[in-house]
Amino acid sequence: MKKKFVYFFSKKKSEGSKEMKNLLGGKGAGLAEMASIGLPVPAGFTITTEVCDLFYKNNRNYPAGLDKEVDENMRRLEKEVGKKFGDAADPLLVSVRSGAPLSMPGMMETILNLGLNDRSVSGLAAKTGNRRFALDAYRRFIMMYGSTAKGIDREEFNHAFETVKDRHTRQRLNLPGDVKVNDTDVNESELEILVDEFKAIYKRNINEDFPQDPKEQLWGSVNAVFGSWMAEKAVTYRRVEKIKGVVGTAVNVQQMVFGNMGPKSGTGVCFTRDPNSGENIFYGDYLVNAQGEDVVAGIRTPIKLSEFEDADPVSYKQLVDVRRTLERHFKDMQDLEFTVEEGRLYMLQCRTGKRSPAASFRIAVDMVEEKLIRKEDAILRIKDKDIEGIFYPIIDPDQKDELKKNYLVSGIDAVPGAASGKVVFNAKDAEEAAARDEKVILVRKETSPEDVGGMHAAQGILTATGGKTSHAAVVARGWGKCCIVGCEKLSINYEKGEMAVGDAVVRKGEAITLNGSTGQVYRGSLRLIKPEPPAAFKTLMGWVDRARAIRVRTNADTPYDAAKAIELGAEGIGLCRTEHMFFDTEERRLAIQEMIVADTLQGRVEALDKLLPFQKEDFKGIFKVMNGFPVTIRLIDPPLHEFVPHTEEKQIHLADKIGIPFEKVRQRVEQLHEANPMLGHRGCRLAITYPEILDMQVRAVIEAACECSAEGVDVLPEIMIPLTIDKKEMGILAMRTRLVADAVIKEKRARLKYLVGTMIEVPRAALLADQIAEESDFFSFGTNDLTQMTMGISRDDAGKFLPDYVDEKKAGVFAEDPFQSLDQAGVGMLVRMGIEKGRKTKPGLKIGICGEHGGEAKSVEFCCRVGMNYVSCSPFRVPIARLAAAQAEIKRKAAAAPAKPKKAAKKAPVKKILKKAKPAKKAAVKKTVKKAKPVKKATVKKVAKKAKTVKKGKKK
Amino acid sequence: MKKKFVYFFSKKKSEGSKEMKNLLGGKGAGLAEMASIGLPVPAGFTITTEVCDLFYKNNRNYPAGLDKEVDENMRRLEKEVGKKFGDAADPLLVSVRSGAPLSMPGMMETILNLGLNDRSVSGLAAKTGNRRFALDAYRRFIMMYGSTAKGIDREEFNHAFETVKDRHTRQRLNLPGDVKVNDTDVNESELEILVDEFKAIYKRNINEDFPQDPKEQLWGSVNAVFGSWMAEKAVTYRRVEKIKGVVGTAVNVQQMVFGNMGPKSGTGVCFTRDPNSGENIFYGDYLVNAQGEDVVAGIRTPIKLSEFEDADPVSYKQLVDVRRTLERHFKDMQDLEFTVEEGRLYMLQCRTGKRSPAASFRIAVDMVEEKLIRKEDAILRIKDKDIEGIFYPIIDPDQKDELKKNYLVSGIDAVPGAASGKVVFNAKDAEEAAARDEKVILVRKETSPEDVGGMHAAQGILTATGGKTSHAAVVARGWGKCCIVGCEKLSINYEKGEMAVGDAVVRKGEAITLNGSTGQVYRGSLRLIKPEPPAAFKTLMGWVDRARAIRVRTNADTPYDAAKAIELGAEGIGLCRTEHMFFDTEERRLAIQEMIVADTLQGRVEALDKLLPFQKEDFKGIFKVMNGFPVTIRLIDPPLHEFVPHTEEKQIHLADKIGIPFEKVRQRVEQLHEANPMLGHRGCRLAITYPEILDMQVRAVIEAACECSAEGVDVLPEIMIPLTIDKKEMGILAMRTRLVADAVIKEKRARLKYLVGTMIEVPRAALLADQIAEESDFFSFGTNDLTQMTMGISRDDAGKFLPDYVDEKKAGVFAEDPFQSLDQAGVGMLVRMGIEKGRKTKPGLKIGICGEHGGEAKSVEFCCRVGMNYVSCSPFRVPIARLAAAQAEIKRKAAAAPAKPKKAAKKAPVKKILKKAKPAKKAAVKKTVKKAKPVKKATVKKVAKKAKTVKKGKKK
Repeated sequence: MKKKFVYFFSKKKSEGSKEMKNLLGGKGAGLAEMASIGLPVPAGFTITTEVCDLFYKNNRNYPAGLDKEVDENMRRLEKEVGKKFGDAADPLLVSVRSGAPLSMPGMMETILNLGLNDRSVSGLAAKTGNRRFALDAYRRFIMMYGSTAKGIDREEFNHAFETVKDRHTRQRLNLPGDVKVNDTDVNESELEILVDEFKAIYKRNINEDFPQDPKEQLWGSVNAVFGSWMAEKAVTYRRVEKIKGVVGTAVNVQQMVFGNMGPKSGTGVCFTRDPNSGENIFYGDYLVNAQGEDVVAGIRTPIKLSEFEDADPVSYKQLVDVRRTLERHFKDMQDLEFTVEEGRLYMLQCRTGKRSPAASFRIAVDMVEEKLIRKEDAILRIKDKDIEGIFYPIIDPDQKDELKKNYLVSGIDAVPGAASGKVVFNAKDAEEAAARDEKVILVRKETSPEDVGGMHAAQGILTATGGKTSHAAVVARGWGKCCIVGCEKLSINYEKGEMAVGDAVVRKGEAITLNGSTGQVYRGSLRLIKPEPPAAFKTLMGWVDRARAIRVRTNADTPYDAAKAIELGAEGIGLCRTEHMFFDTEERRLAIQEMIVADTLQGRVEALDKLLPFQKEDFKGIFKVMNGFPVTIRLIDPPLHEFVPHTEEKQIHLADKIGIPFEKVRQRVEQLHEANPMLGHRGCRLAITYPEILDMQVRAVIEAACECSAEGVDVLPEIMIPLTIDKKEMGILAMRTRLVADAVIKEKRARLKYLVGTMIEVPRAALLADQIAEESDFFSFGTNDLTQMTMGISRDDAGKFLPDYVDEKKAGVFAEDPFQSLDQAGVGMLVRMGIEKGRKTKPGLKIGICGEHGGEAKSVEFCCRVGMNYVSCSPFRVPIARLAAAQAEIKRKAAAAPAKPKKAAKKAPVKKILKKAKPAKKAAVKKTVKKAKPVKKATVKKVAKKAKTVKKGKKK
Repeated sequence: MKKKFVYFFSKKKSEGSKEMKNLLGGKGAGLAEMASIGLPVPAGFTITTEVCDLFYKNNRNYPAGLDKEVDENMRRLEKEVGKKFGDAADPLLVSVRSGAPLSMPGMMETILNLGLNDRSVSGLAAKTGNRRFALDAYRRFIMMYGSTAKGIDREEFNHAFETVKDRHTRQRLNLPGDVKVNDTDVNESELEILVDEFKAIYKRNINEDFPQDPKEQLWGSVNAVFGSWMAEKAVTYRRVEKIKGVVGTAVNVQQMVFGNMGPKSGTGVCFTRDPNSGENIFYGDYLVNAQGEDVVAGIRTPIKLSEFEDADPVSYKQLVDVRRTLERHFKDMQDLEFTVEEGRLYMLQCRTGKRSPAASFRIAVDMVEEKLIRKEDAILRIKDKDIEGIFYPIIDPDQKDELKKNYLVSGIDAVPGAASGKVVFNAKDAEEAAARDEKVILVRKETSPEDVGGMHAAQGILTATGGKTSHAAVVARGWGKCCIVGCEKLSINYEKGEMAVGDAVVRKGEAITLNGSTGQVYRGSLRLIKPEPPAAFKTLMGWVDRARAIRVRTNADTPYDAAKAIELGAEGIGLCRTEHMFFDTEERRLAIQEMIVADTLQGRVEALDKLLPFQKEDFKGIFKVMNGFPVTIRLIDPPLHEFVPHTEEKQIHLADKIGIPFEKVRQRVEQLHEANPMLGHRGCRLAITYPEILDMQVRAVIEAACECSAEGVDVLPEIMIPLTIDKKEMGILAMRTRLVADAVIKEKRARLKYLVGTMIEVPRAALLADQIAEESDFFSFGTNDLTQMTMGISRDDAGKFLPDYVDEKKAGVFAEDPFQSLDQAGVGMLVRMGIEKGRKTKPGLKIGICGEHGGEAKSVEFCCRVGMNYVSCSPFRVPIARLAAAQAEIKRKAAAAPAKPKKAAKKAPVKKILKKAKPAKKAAVKKTVKKAKPVKKATVKKVAKKAKTVKKGKKK
């Protein structure tokens, strides 16, 4: 079948529809849809995005037949409008606009009044009886065509305009030099001079006369639109915004209507609701007697819609009707462009309106209450960025000049939000500054656990290396603290106390501002703002929690974080990293270091005895906060190397403090060095070589649990063994864990249930999960490490090559950074295998995820799909995970429900379907809900039952 | 069913057989078998290894019923022999000997003459008419029981003996002080004094009288045997020798026969063939008028068997008959122990004889020629250690004292063989010493590619860190150079130029000797010997090559290594690491370093242009050596960090040489640093970021191939992309490779076939092998890296914990070091998946392995089993791989053939089966051979055809 390259639209006669956004672009689909449902849309046609794709695939040549199809559609348009393209007496004028499937800055926008030439301008003058209008339209066309389609500097035209105004209009009106001459002041004869001047500019730049053939004008404009698809700016935009799978832009050719035909004409843009607050009010601007470009150019101040109603109630009434129709039709807030031509409203664009995060929630919730949409729709409409936007401070976007002027460098956007403060280059300085109440940004080549105190003290963190799951990123994310990593262009000189980007040097103490949401770094302290969560947020998250089928826990290491996570909706701790506790105070640091440098079992046990009370107190604090929720505690995981001091000064200090020779400390530190610490002596391997560490940690957990339990706290401890790779290994450690735990319970004369499980974070563990499950009460997928090992990519080093792998313009191997969004094809296959094999051995095996992916929407959806019981993520990502889990469940149910109505929709005319589809949809929804509810309740009950059982068991 | 704990044996009435080695131990099974086939074996019974196992499992208690069973068997023995245990007049005397399934030093050996007491000694004297003999037997028994079973220091007994000799015998015979008193000089009354003295020693030490009850004596001895199973020495031996799955030792109780009853009595040990040369001559020692322990103690010099023939032709004739019977029966060289009691031969032990590597080959080949065994049996009998023993020098084992005195420390036995030389601590010193013709041992904490020159110059390599597949081990193995790694106790101080083990310090220039086969390090230059490969080696390896079904290639980077490998039977190169070529000369090093520090494409390309001719020449050299065999060339793999200098001095030198600022070099080196280089910017990731490197390397390969081809060399280049993880990535690189290659072929107006394939060495690649196969002509499994990533174990760091994982006494998680023998359960699962998925996409996909496992017997067997086309290993391991491949194929065929006769063997009496089984076995063998041959030929033909096609294609 021959491909159709051009789609015609006019009132109730559109060939396209809103479903065809990919083919017709957003604008084309919107116009077709509006025309379909009978709204006043000037007729026209859309050249598809596929033409753009073929154009580039075929070495910038159009597909055969396009020419003919455009001609046919132009003839159809002429017939519909009753005017001829290029007619000297009554010319059909058109606009040419680009329109990609997604809004995309950087591409050619609009050319208006196309079809005018030296002859037809007179015809238009005669036909409208307004020669000034015709000349104004012509000079605009020449300028737009010349600058937009042919790349002539717009300033040349502006300058010529200003010259005419100064030399002629000002003289004629005798205006003083300090009074501005308005465009509307310029008269016919002056416009004639201007038209000549513009044509001269065109010729000077292009070495050709301004084209008089409308067809040439049309193709010149179409070429320009398609050409702009690959313009640097557009390509960069797509890369930065990670826009993929969009093959090209469409071109819309549409009959001109004129907002500049007098006081009953005008043009405007509006939102069907307030895009900032989300309030259900009509929101927008209107410019009397103007063409669209005047609004954009900001030449005159537009009026509010309320004033429009006063000024032109008839036109306004039409617009209000359109607003209602469109919201009912699209069931979402719309962003509209319209023109009033002598009291008659024309719709020029309609698309889903962008809105602030707060507005997203309010509109979604309001529309449910207005019964426009279902709760499920409301949930599906919220994006993870909306939640981020609710919680994280941002740089006030009004500081446009400062943002431009102060921009320094970009890194990887590890943790969203914004922060500003004075630069410090080490943790100590950060802590001291914080003690003085100074705001600082900690800048490091990379961070290590030793830096945690300083990281906590800083407003934000900037590192030269590392990826989104580097130490800096992971720790900062846990606190919701703004963080930029992998800023490879940054050259840091610790000794001099300065950092440089090329020639630009920032010294210690100078202020910088980080935009963690984009990865941009600025000099100076920019103004930050912090949005307030709206009431609708709470309402919607309530729906979210009822909609989802899996639990959301948090990764938290302190009572403070745990409390924060509970506030954000966490239902337990999925990962409590016990090693972070070792860095809290110097006393603790010294004890762990003493343990590490000890070369006898006795020495290690003595040092561990010092740590026991600290760990126990930490666990008690967490258990109390998590009262009634499970707490998964992971035994020590990082290589011991991370705990010891690496500078001679600190080593001497340590030797001094614990009373052993410096040389011994130095030797031990050297001995601990590893070529690839990620694959080294860490995780449960530490417990195999130093079982006394496991003993201490298990004792601390279980003593804390028994003591809390005695105080009436509902404690559900789950001890997790990291980095296991073999059943026998897990068996040895699980048995030792149970021996210690049971001994403590006996000592304390307590009743306590606890679980012993393992992380699945090494490929071998996933491959042999059926065997490992025999020794495990639960699995938790550590997808950070699993990703590193399965893909052979160190997250700390990925900054050197991974960007090229994700960059479509370079290799484009991966659609997304696999440390950000789970690599479902590769790592996901192991996760699936791990779950299937694990449950083959133990059908009811509790399975969760505690890698960074547990807080990323697509990954959470994957976790739901493969049957996990819970996801766990940093406190600030808990709401995102809750949302993603709900969305996944809603999608799952929708996929399970019969999809008949949707299929029909593709072929039948849109209007008909709407009638047919509605009841069908509702029915489907009802069914789904009916079916789903009992299941959900049962699940919840089961969980509740289990929880109770545990409680009972403990209290007996 | 009640378990049987005791097995009786006597001439033609044995309950056990040679198949029951695990249950009866080697000695017990041998005795039972010899008795079964009618050889003269003193009757007795064996307490099973299972009793030993149960003894330890049950907290050192014997299983119920054992006592009764022993009693019953003792009564049966009494009946058989016609004497009563403990009878005062004519006592039944027995020996008690341990006997584990494997020969195992460190366990209690033998107690003789058990059953004697103060009364029966007189009975024995009367019965034999030889009171001196009876007393001598009694004093021996007291001494053996006291020392061996009760742990009394043997020196106390010896001292008492010497005292009696000095005080009484010397006086009586009036011997001067410098003449030794022989044991045989001691007379009856002196022996009576000695017996009393021995009993007093016993009482003094044990606080009990020497037991007079024979049953108490028996259980005391049995306890001692079982107790010795867990003695420190035995446990250590099992650990060191990696003996696993052996549950315990058996105890053999056997009627005594006496070699010390006069000149027609005696005792001897012999081998049915010469265990050193393998020659088919009777080989052994005989001691006239002596008990077994006298031979071991070396009190008198034994006579050769030829002298035995002269001295006692009748007894000798019996022994020669036994020799023939046993070799025919066991079809292998036997190690025998026998006693002649007054002209009558008794067999006391028979086991497969240990032999030198050279003898292994000679005996196997001779026995085939003697039609005792089939070629397949001969092949199966050879062990990889036999091949190693043929090629590597060893420390002359005669230097027992030096070995003991000079022992310094032990590390991991990375590459077998031995080496000695002066210690140097850096590559430069090693190279300089080599230039002076000095032998050196290079000692490093770890090695890096920069050290390769020095490693090559050294006789052997010793590192403090790393495992069997660390850089040092891998490189050394390629050269067959003695190497010990992971010697963690070694503390190296480069600055001082010394290394220390505890207090023992070795300075630069002092000599050490390495035993790479055991990992032991000695001070000083010990004497080395180098065995010569026997003629039988060549014969047997010829059979091996005909027996195997897969190809054996080699990992070689130079024409020299390639030629060595061809000599050792390699059939192509499976892995040519191009990066090693970059280190050969300073000129090359500078060029690659210049490329790395260049910050423009132009700069890199210029530096690469300098490298091109070097690489091309290397490839040409290799192609010429490999004429007609395929050569797989891997593109650059290691992280660039490994190529740049890391000391300031060297960085300044580089900056100077290539004319850029030092600071830039320093910065670039710093920038290249990675936290986990194994998972960093390496492998094909380099080609993604710097495609110009790929361009240069592919050009070098293809230009070399075209030029060689023009000279008439038969070139089969296979370009291999390392570290791929995705189809798209592989697609990009394969396409670029083909573009460059085809352009070169066109330039050269050549005809050349080449392949583009990939390594499967990252778990993700194995998981998605079906997709990656679409872009690949072949797969080669890089199981070193695949093991590292699948198990999450860095081979360079594994020394810190992997030993505990392999040590049965510690965690014992793995049976073997997974870097040595492929982890078939985990990593092997991915290999299987990779092969299955790859062949699903491309059924004929050529698949090999090029990790270190390609030269390890069990892993090679796995590779055969999962259907690989070839294995590739370092030149010196090629014969081992050939052997393993042949053994795998023979086993595969045997498993495929019907196994009926074997099943029957279990139940029917042994003798009957032998008759029945023989013809059946032969038939089975014939069938197998018939079936197998045509298949093999076809395969070979196919390969030959393919090779021809390639040739033709090229010459057209």
